[in-house]
Amino acid sequence: MYRSHTCGALSLTDINKTVSLSGWVQKNRKLGKMSFVDLRDRYGITQLTFNEIIDKQLFEYSLTLNREDVIQIEGLVVEREQKNAQLSTGEIEIQVQKLNVLSTSSTPPFTIENETDGGDELRMQYRYLDLRRPSVQEKIILRSKMAVEIRNYMSAQNFLEIETPFLIKSTPEGARDFVVPSRMNEGEFYALPQSPQTFKQLLMVSGFDRYFQIVRCFRDEDLRADRQPEFTQLDCEMSFVTQEDVMNMFEGLTKHMFKTFLNIKLDDFQRVSYKEAIENYGSDKPDLRFDMKFIELNTLLKDKGFAVFDNAELVVAINLKNSASFTRKQLDGLTDFVKQPQIGCKGMVYIKHNEDGSIKSSVDKFFSQAQLSEALAKSNSSKGDLLLILAGEKEQTRTALGKLRLHVADMLNLVNNNEFKPLWVVDFPLLEKIPDTDQWHAMHHPFTSPKKEDEHLLSSEPHKARANAYDLVINGVELGGGSIRIHERALQEKVFEALGFSKQEAYEQFGFLLDAFQYGAPPHGGIAFGFDRWVALFSKCESIRDCIAFPKNNSGKDVMINAPSKLDKTQLNELNIKLSV
Amino acid sequence: MYRSHTCGALSLTDINKTVSLSGWVQKNRKLGKMSFVDLRDRYGITQLTFNEIIDKQLFEYSLTLNREDVIQIEGLVVEREQKNAQLSTGEIEIQVQKLNVLSTSSTPPFTIENETDGGDELRMQYRYLDLRRPSVQEKIILRSKMAVEIRNYMSAQNFLEIETPFLIKSTPEGARDFVVPSRMNEGEFYALPQSPQTFKQLLMVSGFDRYFQIVRCFRDEDLRADRQPEFTQLDCEMSFVTQEDVMNMFEGLTKHMFKTFLNIKLDDFQRVSYKEAIENYGSDKPDLRFDMKFIELNTLLKDKGFAVFDNAELVVAINLKNSASFTRKQLDGLTDFVKQPQIGCKGMVYIKHNEDGSIKSSVDKFFSQAQLSEALAKSNSSKGDLLLILAGEKEQTRTALGKLRLHVADMLNLVNNNEFKPLWVVDFPLLEKIPDTDQWHAMHHPFTSPKKEDEHLLSSEPHKARANAYDLVINGVELGGGSIRIHERALQEKVFEALGFSKQEAYEQFGFLLDAFQYGAPPHGGIAFGFDRWVALFSKCESIRDCIAFPKNNSGKDVMINAPSKLDKTQLNELNIKLSV
Repeated sequence: MYRSHTCGALSLTDINKTVSLSGWVQKNRKLGKMSFVDLRDRYGITQLTFNEIIDKQLFEYSLTLNREDVIQIEGLVVEREQKNAQLSTGEIEIQVQKLNVLSTSSTPPFTIENETDGGDELRMQYRYLDLRRPSVQEKIILRSKMAVEIRNYMSAQNFLEIETPFLIKSTPEGARDFVVPSRMNEGEFYALPQSPQTFKQLLMVSGFDRYFQIVRCFRDEDLRADRQPEFTQLDCEMSFVTQEDVMNMFEGLTKHMFKTFLNIKLDDFQRVSYKEAIENYGSDKPDLRFDMKFIELNTLLKDKGFAVFDNAELVVAINLKNSASFTRKQLDGLTDFVKQPQIGCKGMVYIKHNEDGSIKSSVDKFFSQAQLSEALAKSNSSKGDLLLILAGEKEQTRTALGKLRLHVADMLNLVNNNEFKPLWVVDFPLLEKIPDTDQWHAMHHPFTSPKKEDEHLLSSEPHKARANAYDLVINGVELGGGSIRIHERALQEKVFEALGFSKQEAYEQFGFLLDAFQYGAPPHGGIAFGFDRWVALFSKCESIRDCIAFPKNNSGKDVMINAPSKLDKTQLNELNIKLSV
Repeated sequence: MYRSHTCGALSLTDINKTVSLSGWVQKNRKLGKMSFVDLRDRYGITQLTFNEIIDKQLFEYSLTLNREDVIQIEGLVVEREQKNAQLSTGEIEIQVQKLNVLSTSSTPPFTIENETDGGDELRMQYRYLDLRRPSVQEKIILRSKMAVEIRNYMSAQNFLEIETPFLIKSTPEGARDFVVPSRMNEGEFYALPQSPQTFKQLLMVSGFDRYFQIVRCFRDEDLRADRQPEFTQLDCEMSFVTQEDVMNMFEGLTKHMFKTFLNIKLDDFQRVSYKEAIENYGSDKPDLRFDMKFIELNTLLKDKGFAVFDNAELVVAINLKNSASFTRKQLDGLTDFVKQPQIGCKGMVYIKHNEDGSIKSSVDKFFSQAQLSEALAKSNSSKGDLLLILAGEKEQTRTALGKLRLHVADMLNLVNNNEFKPLWVVDFPLLEKIPDTDQWHAMHHPFTSPKKEDEHLLSSEPHKARANAYDLVINGVELGGGSIRIHERALQEKVFEALGFSKQEAYEQFGFLLDAFQYGAPPHGGIAFGFDRWVALFSKCESIRDCIAFPKNNSGKDVMINAPSKLDKTQLNELNIKLSV
């Protein structure tokens, strides 16, 4: 037996017990004829003492201990003279009687503390050491506890966790699949699932009624900062439900998680239509912790002779409270921000509503004070405010202003990191145009149902049809999204057609689902949450990567184990594939 | 809202309530001026009634309902005249006032009842309908509940569920990997994990102390009847533990599961060494529900002039109680059994210990009655018993007799399917010879530690070294297996060497683990259970395939979705691979 207790367990009630502990040497210091070792494990830190007068040999042995050595000790629990209120074990210490070094440690490549000197790449290579740092370990423990809580909540609501297959069929629609050559079926490939979508729908057809799964999914995309080729989803589906039923169920789960882990009691979630979200915030995942709604100024500022506005489809503004005092440099900074290629504006117009009531604008030449004053009035501007105006093509301008809105909120410290403003974004369009083509693809996925009242638009003006789709957005982050699915073969075929599938293509790829709908399919719908993202939100970390035990880097590599890697020729031969030269 | 209640919820306490239900039409029958519909969902069956006199139109509509149609109804809960004690809802029925057909069903390709007319292939193709059959649905629900129970038990024991990656590195050692070409890293491949072995060990190095995961694993093997290319494992690891600690922990879990799901209180598990298991039962996973231990007869029957025995390495027997009356035909049948190529004996010898005390044997010519009598005595044979003897090379003969033992136990109905006899098989050899070579491979896996007292054998007689490895066996099924791992770099290198790895190969493949052991690795060990198999055991089904929602067939195909399948050329090009012609 390596230990009678963990390093977080002992307290004053254990005084005079002989105990054994095992763990890592966190610190080792000598003070006169005494040495003190902090022994660490997942559960806490316990102070060990060695006394030269009592046992000289053991004392000297203790001095040889290095940070991160793994030791086992036996000793007597005694009350500390100087208590440490920071530690759960801070009232006691162990007078060590026996010491056994289980495993020694070389000097780690970086310091194993929250504030480490290790760079990103080095910590990824030695991820097993990085995971010893308390701030990192906490995230993984939080993740584990969140999964337990979700599972118990869902189970209590009669959801069954049902495992769906990982070796499935590749479908060209959507993101790129990871594929797996089949040795037994020459020339054929499995695909790894981007989500268990069709399987969970089949489970509804089977009558399982309420399904969930915390499940790994895969997407072979070019990785942006916060994407991982494999990620974890909380995937859910329910039968005999409307959109409201699904939203209520998962609003309940979300509130429960916030209460349990952050002790925050969330109010009922706002509901904002996609149209409102775009028109008011330039984003389908608006951060509502601050206001700054868009103000449309077409009627006031277009056709007054300022060509930039006159030629623009949309003139739109945000009002910054108490910001009329922005310097030239600050304003230039904002102009530079919106002119970045990824934002793509040609410029920015401002109107300062000075404290003394005077108005100063970058377009003073083109507009009368009265006209500018009208624009301020429409914007509910007060003395001391600053109006920022963008103009151009409607969609692009809104998106740009949405980004500017987030940027200035950050600048003005309007963002409270301890506040959470969840909302449901609803009434998404069913389809969106694939850029630079005449083709449409499904905004959510091809199995999403159109709103009943918009079904007739499918054959005439499909882009106008709205979907029974909903996203859960918190603080500008899309935490999850779902929809009520199609459960009738004819309607599903119609949607495939609108998406440009031929009958044959649709049947080849999704024939099993179309067939399934012929044998009594219940109305059903569901949702999927990005679990990594949820953990990141709760642990207040910037990147989902920090919330994954063994993440990949931005090239999709695991630099610790060195994957991916080359294969033997024989292995390739067995799989009946060759590398292209 | 599609329903106020489920089809399993209503009882006498709901009388006179107006309720709405949704579900599948299980049965529909007309009796005079009434029609009765059994409405089914996952939770139960509720009887609906339609009365021609009350509402003729609705009554006639009800007659058009087909099996498996999905309907929604509203109606009044009334007490049944003829109660059905079989159903939780058997005391009430619903007088339907509104009927809404949500989705109709074509005639299913097989009957959706426990006793179905659907063949294997057809049911696999329409697995979503097969999953509606109560006996199949129950297994998936049991599986889900078992997972919940395991997770809560493990969590209560301070285990953390930590997710490990699916896109890892291929290692030629062990079974064949499924691989995944990396588009971003040209010419390189990920592998899907055969188990999270090295990751869970790294988690111990990180200090997570107690890890578990219910996790999908992958093996590209030629599929035997009861193998799936993807399967689910309950994977566990603990730090600062001995073999006893791990066995006690998981004996506790196993007992808890048996109590919870089968209401069986298991006794403490027997422990049998590998050597004993092989010598007494010819198998490292003996079924202990019946005895029939092997009896070695070398000293009594060798060198008496019967060449078959004289030339054999081993003469070994089992004693069948009350079987002396076996007919010639039955005995010939047993001889045929052991002569099958997969068993490979040349023949079988018997000694009948007749009820009258006389002795009759197939080798009467070669042995005196006294010699045969001595053999019977050593075998604790009683009047009426039958001794079956095999002879030949030691290992092969034991294996053959082990199979014969199971065969006759089955024949004699010695196997009680409601009895469970768990045991730990311990003291496995560390290595086993790869057939037809001079090479060794790890019996458990290369990370298993040798017993301290056998470490010195590693360089001289590695095959004699025993491992700190253990299997949990129940009724002849290996439910799980594990080991105490190596946690020291030098010892791990020694074992790699014994396995024929060069230093460079070992480092290329497992350098990250060897490195990790240098930074303070705790002693650790663990176990992995075949979760599919565990569910199969508890649901008393023969094949793990029946306990998986969407299994593959014996060619590794999912015939429902038609996977694997061909890929587009463009997809292959992007992955930089070609098919070999």
